[in-house]
Amino acid sequence: MGVEAKKFKRNHRIVFICQYLMEHPNQLVTLSFFADYFDSAKSSISEDINFVRDVFQENDLGDIRTVAGVSGGIIFYPTIQDRDLKDLFQRVAKKMQSGKRVLPGNYIYMGDVLQDSDILNRLGKLIASRYQQSGVDAVMTIETKGIGLAVAVARYLNVPHVVVRRDSRDAEGSTISISYLSGSLQTVNKMELSKLALAPKSKVLVVDDFLRNGGTIFGLLSMLEEFECQLAGVCVFAENTDQEKQKLPPHESLMKIQMVYNPEIEHFELYTEPGSFFQDQAFEPFTTSLH
Amino acid sequence: MGVEAKKFKRNHRIVFICQYLMEHPNQLVTLSFFADYFDSAKSSISEDINFVRDVFQENDLGDIRTVAGVSGGIIFYPTIQDRDLKDLFQRVAKKMQSGKRVLPGNYIYMGDVLQDSDILNRLGKLIASRYQQSGVDAVMTIETKGIGLAVAVARYLNVPHVVVRRDSRDAEGSTISISYLSGSLQTVNKMELSKLALAPKSKVLVVDDFLRNGGTIFGLLSMLEEFECQLAGVCVFAENTDQEKQKLPPHESLMKIQMVYNPEIEHFELYTEPGSFFQDQAFEPFTTSLH
Repeated sequence: MGVEAKKFKRNHRIVFICQYLMEHPNQLVTLSFFADYFDSAKSSISEDINFVRDVFQENDLGDIRTVAGVSGGIIFYPTIQDRDLKDLFQRVAKKMQSGKRVLPGNYIYMGDVLQDSDILNRLGKLIASRYQQSGVDAVMTIETKGIGLAVAVARYLNVPHVVVRRDSRDAEGSTISISYLSGSLQTVNKMELSKLALAPKSKVLVVDDFLRNGGTIFGLLSMLEEFECQLAGVCVFAENTDQEKQKLPPHESLMKIQMVYNPEIEHFELYTEPGSFFQDQAFEPFTTSLH
Repeated sequence: MGVEAKKFKRNHRIVFICQYLMEHPNQLVTLSFFADYFDSAKSSISEDINFVRDVFQENDLGDIRTVAGVSGGIIFYPTIQDRDLKDLFQRVAKKMQSGKRVLPGNYIYMGDVLQDSDILNRLGKLIASRYQQSGVDAVMTIETKGIGLAVAVARYLNVPHVVVRRDSRDAEGSTISISYLSGSLQTVNKMELSKLALAPKSKVLVVDDFLRNGGTIFGLLSMLEEFECQLAGVCVFAENTDQEKQKLPPHESLMKIQMVYNPEIEHFELYTEPGSFFQDQAFEPFTTSLH
């Protein structure tokens, strides 16, 4: 009975530690926290953590790293399983194959894809797993459509998400405002960010839903200069690879979308393929045509 | 050795099941999925799930419910621990005590509170846990500041988040547009939502960052009528209880904020207390004054 009880205790701790780390990705957790919670010795907790680490590693769910020293502990860095990634892009493809995607003006409607919580969560984990060793301090995006993705990435990186506004009617205190050239219409637009929203000298990951001509991203990069921030990278969900275009900002994309006019059905069709995010990977998330 | 190996296998499965359910809240998961993954009998999986369920229950982390029938399985409904809730509001209070909160025009700056990934995640879990048995089909908010919270709630409810726009310059296909009376300025504003973004007859939870005069919320309720949708509830992060005001829409708030002018320091001070969301609970998240 005594042995049974102890075993139960062990399993119990393992489940608790697992769920706790899942809820606190990219966050330092001390062994004392768990030791206090269970009234257990740190050596037992250490064994439990090693066990959870093994299971996470074997199943490709992420790394649990040990941080040594007085203020030490463990940090959980989540990764996305290959099978989960395939499933994610199948789900994206399935969603994009439903409904009419090419709108008047040849805009591509993707709102419902990035509204989907499960898709968003996995995209967030995927992007975060690429940048979680880069010392990112904040995830930046521009209102409105990229916000969901930025929130999901920021959640896994455990950093704030920062939203640059096109027109901030609500008072946000002092803002820094810049003008930028909108690529598609070649007009000069403004964007602004509250000075309270982003600490100067931060290292910032820029995330957005769609890259068309790069105008918005160049704008965000200028904004980062104004805040004397450093760029960790630019990652967009999709980029349009149609027209030969002007110089684009450095970026990664999860997928490339091409619009090709099909005279038979008198409508544009969409062709999608994996973006530069996957260029070093053998894995091909999906290649498909939509309309 | 045989027994050891089996034990390891069991712990292994338990950790995997735990992490999987954490990543798929409010989602039906079949026993077959786990049975296939581990090449195990469903009866073993069933025992594992019962164990995880017990640990979740004992630690107040949520319910794992069984759905019977051919298309049956289990659903994980997360809840937030009391200690975690206290910690959450301590963190909110600490954040709100830092920096200057009352801006010119007596606006209250809260942007950084709802930028914080950890706060946002826990607020999402808290609000979702109240509404997860209500059959919510979508979480709706208005751009921009409430989007992060809506994304976090929607993630735990596993439903889409829907963003009503104040001015959609990007093409989103056909939209439904309404006029509404902005409470604070008593001007007529417009809001619009893509017809592709929300399925008619959905049951919708409205989430926003701040309730001042209720004008925006009334606008969102009109929008729901246009989409022939049903209201699951209105939940805001904070409400301003200063002025005696016109009729407010039915709502819950997580906290109430009052601004009181302090002639000694010639500045407004903020007083916060728990909102109506907690009215049936003995627990007092925090009562504090800020400036």
